[in-house]
Amino acid sequence: MSRVAGVVVTPVAFADPPLLNVVGVHEPFALRALVQVRTDDGLVGLGETYADDAHLARLGAVASAVVGLDVYDLNGLRRIVIDVLGNGRGAAFGGMLAVQDPADVVLSPFEVALLDIQGKELGRPVADLLGGVVRPEVPFSAYLFYKWVAHPGRAGDSWGEALDSDGIVAQARRMVDEYGFTAIKLKGGVFAPEQEIEAVKALAAAFPEHSLRIDPNGAWTPSTSVRVAKSLEGLIEYLEDPTPGIGGMAEVARQTELPLATNMCVIAFDHLKPAVLADAVQVVLSDHHYWGGLRRSRLLAGICETFGMGLSMHSNSHLGVSLAAMTHLAAATPNLTYACDTHYPWKTEDLIKPGVLDFVGGSVRVPSGPGLGVELDEDAVGRLHEQYLSCGIRGRDDTSYLRRFDPSFSPNTARW
Amino acid sequence: MSRVAGVVVTPVAFADPPLLNVVGVHEPFALRALVQVRTDDGLVGLGETYADDAHLARLGAVASAVVGLDVYDLNGLRRIVIDVLGNGRGAAFGGMLAVQDPADVVLSPFEVALLDIQGKELGRPVADLLGGVVRPEVPFSAYLFYKWVAHPGRAGDSWGEALDSDGIVAQARRMVDEYGFTAIKLKGGVFAPEQEIEAVKALAAAFPEHSLRIDPNGAWTPSTSVRVAKSLEGLIEYLEDPTPGIGGMAEVARQTELPLATNMCVIAFDHLKPAVLADAVQVVLSDHHYWGGLRRSRLLAGICETFGMGLSMHSNSHLGVSLAAMTHLAAATPNLTYACDTHYPWKTEDLIKPGVLDFVGGSVRVPSGPGLGVELDEDAVGRLHEQYLSCGIRGRDDTSYLRRFDPSFSPNTARW
Ligand SMILES: [Mg+2]
Ligand SMILES: [Mg+2]
Repeated sequence: MSRVAGVVVTPVAFADPPLLNVVGVHEPFALRALVQVRTDDGLVGLGETYADDAHLARLGAVASAVVGLDVYDLNGLRRIVIDVLGNGRGAAFGGMLAVQDPADVVLSPFEVALLDIQGKELGRPVADLLGGVVRPEVPFSAYLFYKWVAHPGRAGDSWGEALDSDGIVAQARRMVDEYGFTAIKLKGGVFAPEQEIEAVKALAAAFPEHSLRIDPNGAWTPSTSVRVAKSLEGLIEYLEDPTPGIGGMAEVARQTELPLATNMCVIAFDHLKPAVLADAVQVVLSDHHYWGGLRRSRLLAGICETFGMGLSMHSNSHLGVSLAAMTHLAAATPNLTYACDTHYPWKTEDLIKPGVLDFVGGSVRVPSGPGLGVELDEDAVGRLHEQYLSCGIRGRDDTSYLRRFDPSFSPNTARW
Repeated sequence: MSRVAGVVVTPVAFADPPLLNVVGVHEPFALRALVQVRTDDGLVGLGETYADDAHLARLGAVASAVVGLDVYDLNGLRRIVIDVLGNGRGAAFGGMLAVQDPADVVLSPFEVALLDIQGKELGRPVADLLGGVVRPEVPFSAYLFYKWVAHPGRAGDSWGEALDSDGIVAQARRMVDEYGFTAIKLKGGVFAPEQEIEAVKALAAAFPEHSLRIDPNGAWTPSTSVRVAKSLEGLIEYLEDPTPGIGGMAEVARQTELPLATNMCVIAFDHLKPAVLADAVQVVLSDHHYWGGLRRSRLLAGICETFGMGLSMHSNSHLGVSLAAMTHLAAATPNLTYACDTHYPWKTEDLIKPGVLDFVGGSVRVPSGPGLGVELDEDAVGRLHEQYLSCGIRGRDDTSYLRRFDPSFSPNTARW
């Protein structure tokens, strides 16, 4: 019976392009924490999560408390996390993610690491521990961003500028060519809705066979949302977070045929009952990083199936351990019928050895190796950790970063 | 990687006392099907389920179809069951259990058997595969019945007659003395509500420290239910299925402080949304035999937690394989905070070797052996199968059996 002998939490930073969104622009480096759980018989399980200072402190506290835990005791893990954190303290992770109770966010990387260990012990992929593979190739979606040509004062990236429909279509073209995606999502909430509607229409014209989505991150009022929805009905497969809050989403949902999706107003189990009672959302974007890991994401999937909601998958900037976990989860979740979001194409550095998580036809094949099926590149981990130490960023703050260049900027939430 | 090499389904019959309920009286023998799943590397996993003819036919069809299945492929198992059964055919199992779609009922014994195999392969109890043990001793409830002294024309049992409050209290006394139960449930719906209220009050007087429940199986109208609820507020921990249907339960729930529990109007995932929208039930009695096995019962538990409903556990007449599965499930389900129902004390025969599932202080300790932790007594299996062959019963029908002795009887559903 394997037990946890120790946990190492390593914050890392990786280069991130200047991607625009409703609250600002991505900083030059995105942070992640690598969680390595070692057992008394020498196995190591991996997890990946956010890495702002407050979260690192929480991870550290749990890391000490889980020593001795049986690797199958996921109930015990959750109890430890809840005990260590205490109750009712809100937590914000930057990038629009804030929760009342961080327990599920903290639980996640440890749970993933324990499942990785279970899989390694068994010689089976993590997907098998989640009920077995229903789709060996998991479709992901292209994730388009309006973006600057470069971070001010730094060298540009290979993607160039995208500040209008032509730039967005060109970005989509390259992403589809290189990765084979069959679904395309546009991150909106940056420009006035008319400009973003135009971009979606340009995408629809350029990619008539692709499934399209737009996500303005709550930039619009309910009435604007309804107006946009009417103009996009038939063109997109769902409309993601047009307006903030369960009440606002419900108001919009009553006035459009378009399914509304969310990773903003339903991001914790507490939000599900009010959302169901209000019939506010038709698609939940799951994300194992804040839904408490893979088993609890399967619970979310079961809830969506039971209550007649669709299921897709959300992404933040992430590295390969997360992509592996996302792929195993999606592979083992029958009702995850939409292509999953991923920021993966935007990164130029990783901490895993390459070759396992390649995109073919827009899909990632479930790693067949034991556990998550990915292996750390120790040199890369060291390099990205050094980068964390030197980059000076200690939490995500897209708004302050944008204000450095435009002091008048304020987040676009329900602006239009 | 273990794969299913073959499945043997064995119908068995075991002696059952003349226990009265809303639809009639238990027949002299209760039926169960033992499902033995054998893998290509010689492991055998066990499941137990209903055994009416129609269900045996369904089990047989699935038994052939699962050969070759990877023992971790629970998603594949569910797909096979759905494919084999086709869609939308109602199924009744007697004893008030009827469902629109039998897939979860058919899935259950196979899923339990596969988990038994996984546990045996790993050398771990099934509870570990469900998230780990949160309570090593699982509390069960005494399950009292109004009963005849004997099946007409047959020898009596050791329990004697219980047709009034004195008989019920005496039955409770013996059950509490022998098993140590700290909760007591009375199966009602047999006599007029006043008589059953009196029995509950007699139990409350005789067992002031015990948690009490009454379950009339929908024998009352909503207004009678409210009247009974008012008279039992403060005396019982929940009121089980006072009246039929989600609408009726919601009507009662609006008029009493007592939590309403059900294993009648919410017995499938399809029933959860309407029940939540109507706020019809405050406690769901789970039962892995019709909620699709242990993993899907954990899903039900997660739904109850998410939507603010309590969780208890239902029982039909069952043998030791079922009790083992119930115990593992309850042990690994944090929010199963009520003592579980069980008919176990009423049976005098079993198909497992004794000694593993003993009641101490009303609780059963989670078997520590691999898998379910129980072993078949092959002689007993043969004997109970012979009994199945000779008893002539091929499906549960409490109503027809009672009518043999009282041709005027009709089920008491919403009679009072
Ligand atoms: Mg979003
Ligand atoms: Mg009941």
